[in-house]
Amino acid sequence: MGSAFRWPLRVYYEDTDAGGIVFYANYLKFFERARTEWLRAAGVSQQLLSNETGCMFVVKNASIDYHAAARLDDHLEISVRIQKLGRASVQFTQEAWRINDHDSARLCTGRIRVGCVNMTSLRPAEIPAEVFRKISGANESMLTART
Amino acid sequence: MGSAFRWPLRVYYEDTDAGGIVFYANYLKFFERARTEWLRAAGVSQQLLSNETGCMFVVKNASIDYHAAARLDDHLEISVRIQKLGRASVQFTQEAWRINDHDSARLCTGRIRVGCVNMTSLRPAEIPAEVFRKISGANESMLTART
Amino acid sequence: MGSAFRWPLRVYYEDTDAGGIVFYANYLKFFERARTEWLRAAGVSQQLLSNETGCMFVVKNASIDYHAAARLDDHLEISVRIQKLGRASVQFTQEAWRINDHDSARLCTGRIRVGCVNMTSLRPAEIPAEVFRKISGANESMLTART
Amino acid sequence: MGSAFRWPLRVYYEDTDAGGIVFYANYLKFFERARTEWLRAAGVSQQLLSNETGCMFVVKNASIDYHAAARLDDHLEISVRIQKLGRASVQFTQEAWRINDHDSARLCTGRIRVGCVNMTSLRPAEIPAEVFRKISGANESMLTART
Repeated sequence: MGSAFRWPLRVYYEDTDAGGIVFYANYLKFFERARTEWLRAAGVSQQLLSNETGCMFVVKNASIDYHAAARLDDHLEISVRIQKLGRASVQFTQEAWRINDHDSARLCTGRIRVGCVNMTSLRPAEIPAEVFRKISGANESMLTART
Repeated sequence: MGSAFRWPLRVYYEDTDAGGIVFYANYLKFFERARTEWLRAAGVSQQLLSNETGCMFVVKNASIDYHAAARLDDHLEISVRIQKLGRASVQFTQEAWRINDHDSARLCTGRIRVGCVNMTSLRPAEIPAEVFRKISGANESMLTART
Repeated sequence: MGSAFRWPLRVYYEDTDAGGIVFYANYLKFFERARTEWLRAAGVSQQLLSNETGCMFVVKNASIDYHAAARLDDHLEISVRIQKLGRASVQFTQEAWRINDHDSARLCTGRIRVGCVNMTSLRPAEIPAEVFRKISGANESMLTART
Repeated sequence: MGSAFRWPLRVYYEDTDAGGIVFYANYLKFFERARTEWLRAAGVSQQLLSNETGCMFVVKNASIDYHAAARLDDHLEISVRIQKLGRASVQFTQEAWRINDHDSARLCTGRIRVGCVNMTSLRPAEIPAEVFRKISGANESMLTART
């Protein structure tokens, strides 16, 4: 997973389905938890963002390839990387990994494009300058850490 | 189920867990879908309610007894009965039934108290007069239908 | 939406998030509900499928473009079309539409590839012959209806 | 919250609804996460439990009083206390608290009775001896810590 930001989580009953595995839509929840914590680590709270600027981030596209399944009690790690940072949107690449004691596997890979919108009109909006600066800074730290 | 309002639904993968049965918290979703449709049948849209009056309904207590389990593809019916209608809250009794071709069983029974609150402060508020009148009317129709 | 199979549903509180709109991952639930009902209409029950053949369908890729948002109480229709039917997988194109009285809009478009797997090993498996025949028949009816 | 077991968590978009607050059914998910982690701390994995003994825990009753609401980004703590440990069931009292920097509040209180059942028949079963011993031991440590 290189030097991307990583967020750990556990698989609970709520995440699984009658197939005995994690329900496929739930990886989108896991991806969002990781993006939220990555944003928080960069100093951005989404609650404050919407209260103070009237903007919020919404997902514009999501594309996921599922490689392997996770089961109850599995320990996962979700990665976050910025692929492209624009003035009104951010393109992420994210992976979910199963990290158990004796086995580790990539479960799925997602490409998620998130856009900034006005909360009332839902129209595209520029990412507020301070938020852009923080995201940009966090991204550069990751790039530097990788080299 | 007597002459209570009933709402049908199907069990999908999203509703089940790795135990092969419907995840226990999801019955609260099913109960709310049925209350919402009961309200709609009484002429009350919750979206309009909040837009026009700044009020919304929130659950104050929920108590559920689980009797039997449901599985993927089961056909359920959720009942709605008013136990007590107050100026700022409504007490419901609800049941979930499995209604398949050759078997039918009561799955769980819930007692749900819903309160009207101001959307911003979340403080208790009187149920708006027109909404109260509609709920009251719908309840009397059910009572009459039963006798 | 042409002559594709369509499945109606309502937006409840459970489907929405604090942004006031349907949570993006939930469209994958809606898409699956529609595929399940399409399968059921073709005579295939997923519960029977797994009990009798030890196989189940799992999603291998999902790609969604979000065009517009849905809100509480909105009435949606989800479409199902087969793009490609293989021996061990099916490629679907699905759309979610908002169909209210005075406005109608396409909310998102998904391309979902579903594979048949052995329930225990999770390895790819051929779609059981009778299931393949039913899916194939249902697909031809749709194609015929379109011309 | 005294010396009960506590499990921290964050409120994400997935947990909230269009009322701007955590959706009421989701506290049952939070309660289960905390019970699962409490069991894990006592040395019991639910995945192993079902694989090795063919038993699983299911919820028999749940009763929740909602006192206050949580919002996006809130930091919660969920407590776990055993009220009564029987041969085939465990009665828990659980609370959800909001623990932010400058404010802290009890959000809801739940009484949850969990029963051990055979995974296939769903009939009540004695809690396997080693699991009972571990739960019992963990409970005594909590009681001792409290005095």
